[in-house]
Amino acid sequence: MDLRENLNWRAAVKKFDSSRKISHEDLQKLLDCLNLSPSSMGLQPYRFLHIKSKEIREKLLPFSFGQPQVVDASDFIVLASHTQINNEYIQKYADLLEQERNLAPEFKEAFLNSAKGYLSLMDQDQKMKWAAHQVYLASGVLLCTAASMQIDACPLEGFVNEKYNEILDLKSYHLHAELCVALGYRDPSDVISSLKKVRIPLDQMLIEF
Amino acid sequence: MDLRENLNWRAAVKKFDSSRKISHEDLQKLLDCLNLSPSSMGLQPYRFLHIKSKEIREKLLPFSFGQPQVVDASDFIVLASHTQINNEYIQKYADLLEQERNLAPEFKEAFLNSAKGYLSLMDQDQKMKWAAHQVYLASGVLLCTAASMQIDACPLEGFVNEKYNEILDLKSYHLHAELCVALGYRDPSDVISSLKKVRIPLDQMLIEF
Repeated sequence: MDLRENLNWRAAVKKFDSSRKISHEDLQKLLDCLNLSPSSMGLQPYRFLHIKSKEIREKLLPFSFGQPQVVDASDFIVLASHTQINNEYIQKYADLLEQERNLAPEFKEAFLNSAKGYLSLMDQDQKMKWAAHQVYLASGVLLCTAASMQIDACPLEGFVNEKYNEILDLKSYHLHAELCVALGYRDPSDVISSLKKVRIPLDQMLIEF
Repeated sequence: MDLRENLNWRAAVKKFDSSRKISHEDLQKLLDCLNLSPSSMGLQPYRFLHIKSKEIREKLLPFSFGQPQVVDASDFIVLASHTQINNEYIQKYADLLEQERNLAPEFKEAFLNSAKGYLSLMDQDQKMKWAAHQVYLASGVLLCTAASMQIDACPLEGFVNEKYNEILDLKSYHLHAELCVALGYRDPSDVISSLKKVRIPLDQMLIEF
């Protein structure tokens, strides 16, 4: 199937088959693609939390409005924005660029000035907004990748961010939980995936200028 | 190539070959996939603006920091959040659900209550934040789709949103320009796409719990 068919196939599965696990190889591909997501200035102002512990997933459940995907899905990923995109963070990224691309000093300097300049225009709230945008973009890449592999994925916004931060001690990592994605395989009894896919027709969504 | 290779191939192309156009069929696929993006409660709180007019693209250029993709790329899409996700909007979407899925009255009612309840918890600022998140998620789907077709795509956040709103008269559509995506084919002289792809290694991006 091509990607359009796969995106038509996908559904925000609520009931996962808890006996089916994503293979190590497929999970690696999902995470590699997620990490290949574009981000503003390439800064990747986020991190990915792979919640493997059943115990922790059960602790997160009551702060996820009891949505069963949190514990039943094969894998559960929390996408978290980075709360300290400061000059030190940018410097570290520029060092990586230099190393990977054998960057000449003047190009490194130009990148540093441009990135520091751009970020200096934002206060902390604006930075968090900007970082959250990059997280959502990355989640789109993850959902699209999963669909292309016919792996089910359900994005979850309905959870208590602060409680997730607390349970995972995200403050110590300078992270903030933005969005979760449950990954795995639909249970045959899942209702959502049996329903006809509905979208507002493209001719109403698209405006030509 | 598989999607991982295609995502490795993609680059935020700055210099497009202005003589190469995306075929009608490919463009249709890109837009179909974009419209298949998941969104919170399925509400698709956004619209897609396809800027076909050369004249309008030239008008947008000075408010895009002169980035040449705005005029050189084969196609230029503005993703805009919807500013009036109110009970009327939700009702219209529920009518569509009813029609497409032959929804029983009690299920329609349940959807209406749930969506209206969810949105009623947000003030206008929170709604705009929520809608922007859905736009960014959709942009990830578009960028991923383009990569899968080896069509170049450059997301642009660097533009004066208010000026775009004004030039495209988005207020009259209840829309706000959030993000643009230039689509087309890289020019052989494009620098970005000739550079080695750099990402913070996955073992630093991924935290296991």
